[in-house]
Amino acid sequence: MNSRPALAPARSVDEYRATVAELLRPAGPRPVRQVAPGAALHALLAADVHSPLELPVFRNSAMDGYALRAESVLVTPVTLPLAGVLAAGADALQPLPAGAAVKVMTGAPVPPGADCVVPVEDTSSDGETVTVSRGRGVGEFVREAGTDVRRGDLLVPAGTRLAPRHVAALAAVGLVTVPVVAPVRAAVLTTGDELMPAGVPLRPGTIYNSNGAALAAALTDNGAEVVSVAHSTDDHGEFRALLGAAVAAADVVLTSGGVSQGDFEVVKEVLGPLGGVFGAVAVQPGGPQGYTVVDGVPVLSFPGNPVSTAVSFEVFARPVLRELAGLPPVPEQWLALRDPIRSPAGKRQYLRGALTAAGVRVVAGPGSHLVAGMARADALVEIPEAVTELPAGAVVRVWSL
Amino acid sequence: MNSRPALAPARSVDEYRATVAELLRPAGPRPVRQVAPGAALHALLAADVHSPLELPVFRNSAMDGYALRAESVLVTPVTLPLAGVLAAGADALQPLPAGAAVKVMTGAPVPPGADCVVPVEDTSSDGETVTVSRGRGVGEFVREAGTDVRRGDLLVPAGTRLAPRHVAALAAVGLVTVPVVAPVRAAVLTTGDELMPAGVPLRPGTIYNSNGAALAAALTDNGAEVVSVAHSTDDHGEFRALLGAAVAAADVVLTSGGVSQGDFEVVKEVLGPLGGVFGAVAVQPGGPQGYTVVDGVPVLSFPGNPVSTAVSFEVFARPVLRELAGLPPVPEQWLALRDPIRSPAGKRQYLRGALTAAGVRVVAGPGSHLVAGMARADALVEIPEAVTELPAGAVVRVWSL
Repeated sequence: MNSRPALAPARSVDEYRATVAELLRPAGPRPVRQVAPGAALHALLAADVHSPLELPVFRNSAMDGYALRAESVLVTPVTLPLAGVLAAGADALQPLPAGAAVKVMTGAPVPPGADCVVPVEDTSSDGETVTVSRGRGVGEFVREAGTDVRRGDLLVPAGTRLAPRHVAALAAVGLVTVPVVAPVRAAVLTTGDELMPAGVPLRPGTIYNSNGAALAAALTDNGAEVVSVAHSTDDHGEFRALLGAAVAAADVVLTSGGVSQGDFEVVKEVLGPLGGVFGAVAVQPGGPQGYTVVDGVPVLSFPGNPVSTAVSFEVFARPVLRELAGLPPVPEQWLALRDPIRSPAGKRQYLRGALTAAGVRVVAGPGSHLVAGMARADALVEIPEAVTELPAGAVVRVWSL
Repeated sequence: MNSRPALAPARSVDEYRATVAELLRPAGPRPVRQVAPGAALHALLAADVHSPLELPVFRNSAMDGYALRAESVLVTPVTLPLAGVLAAGADALQPLPAGAAVKVMTGAPVPPGADCVVPVEDTSSDGETVTVSRGRGVGEFVREAGTDVRRGDLLVPAGTRLAPRHVAALAAVGLVTVPVVAPVRAAVLTTGDELMPAGVPLRPGTIYNSNGAALAAALTDNGAEVVSVAHSTDDHGEFRALLGAAVAAADVVLTSGGVSQGDFEVVKEVLGPLGGVFGAVAVQPGGPQGYTVVDGVPVLSFPGNPVSTAVSFEVFARPVLRELAGLPPVPEQWLALRDPIRSPAGKRQYLRGALTAAGVRVVAGPGSHLVAGMARADALVEIPEAVTELPAGAVVRVWSL
């Protein structure tokens, strides 16, 4: 995450998306984390896992019954002396005496010399002897060692998204940990004197902070691991301190607010002198964007309007985060507009849309403050830079939210 | 979870699945949990959420620029006296003096009397006055209070699976918590003297415990919340103590092992006297099954072979757990068998299959110990009770794992 491409003013969406991808993709191999099989559900296996042992580990009984030689029960009924009882978990170094039987539980070792198991249903016993009413052939109800997997066999291949059945197999061979692709660790840092936490009555001029929860949710939803969510006022010292903590803990930091043309732009003012690149991207909403590499960690700075923040994440961060998490790309489709739309010249516009059987309906105005309206949307409608208006029925590219 | 249907011997798969569903479905309404919007991602909203306030909370500026009366800039260029600066988060109780302008940042309140905002790009200022080069109409770049959502409006309807955009809207209206459907709390209790934890060298006759990790993963994968995973030897006192802890913490307890016809069946021996119902279900693998209601909590007792445990979960527990979590049903399809198969009369058999373009291939033998083989499967192939053999090409029901 060390490259530092320059951000030209009014850069295109595609150029800036490529810049963000370059910033977030690790320079070397993807980081790997060792986790217990029981904690690896839904993780992406980072390397082929070969079995360190064979399964079954030892020859064992598939039934509750009697281990014996098949030749002892060729003619039935027949009564054999009982030479012992083996529970699951018992050791079975003693070979079977010739012509005798050993009582075995399911999963118990079958002693050397025995070559089949007669199920308990086909027997009766007085505790000293067992009478077998139906014979069995060599190998019946005996699970031979190594018939499920042999030592060194490929158990689960690299790149597998681990499901419960993989967890079962990895645990069954006794692995303490397995290597999985480490999720991108992400920190969220919202800014702005006007943002209040939930539960605090709003003073005039203030609003509730939704960007912290929204960015954390979006990161989690796309395979990243959120290591911190913090908020800074527009005070430079506070922002600098919280930024330092975020950079120390994360592989990428997302900030919101403080990047446009106003008089109090804490993000731009602190990160600019640290090499931050701030400028306009030809997109609506979400035009003002910035990035900085701080101590090797990329910091992406989104604008603060809730819809601008969300669209910035969707358009610039989500594709590369899904790639790094091994998740499928964001689904796109081409659909008919149900209503005519207008769009600014020279900017790619993303409208919030709702998918219907008859095409996509625009559900909120273009205003970047319409965060409640966005909750009714399930897609982003993409209007290309050169287009300024489209009639109902025009076919547009739609990205699922 | 209080009903206690009786388990007849050799009960059918469909009957026992219905019994398990009846045991797990809560008697009253589904339990609800209050969680912060930021912790509610992917949860199922339990009730309609109406907005407790309007958004925007107050009339504010959509741009960095100058709030003024549109009539003051009908003719441009024009120079107006500057009456102050309003940052985002500032209060704006002072009305705009007639014929003046106030500098405003994006999101800052627009003072009473101002009716439009001129973007900073269309102005120049010496700090005392501002010169406007392009006029604006009434309402331009002003976000009126309540235009996104009004107090009392439906913000997110009950039954919504919460996505990041819903989290954003719920946080934006300042909600401290939202009601979501509480996940089923599940405890896992494996049994058996022969099961060893990972990292411990195997003594002869012992194997690694895979059922704990596998059941926990399967529960999580189907929307339950795993509150504990424990293992008991076949010692009655130990099992009783661990069972008590599990029942105290969970809405449902899953046990593995100790339910068949052997001499050391701790689960059956302890739970039988507590009203447990144990018997055979006409299924392979997974025939021996049991259930008990302990202190009002259903305890489902699966057999201990890893594949039997996994198939028991898939067939009996997974459907109702998905229903309770509001997840879509297990996907089923009808596919051609690529190989001939045999199946025991009178039992429904579930074979492990792999989906291919040419149909479903059976990837592991029917043995209930083939846990590594199950990792290569992505489906269960269902063979009806009355069928004893099928040729290649026969169409069978297949459940996705």
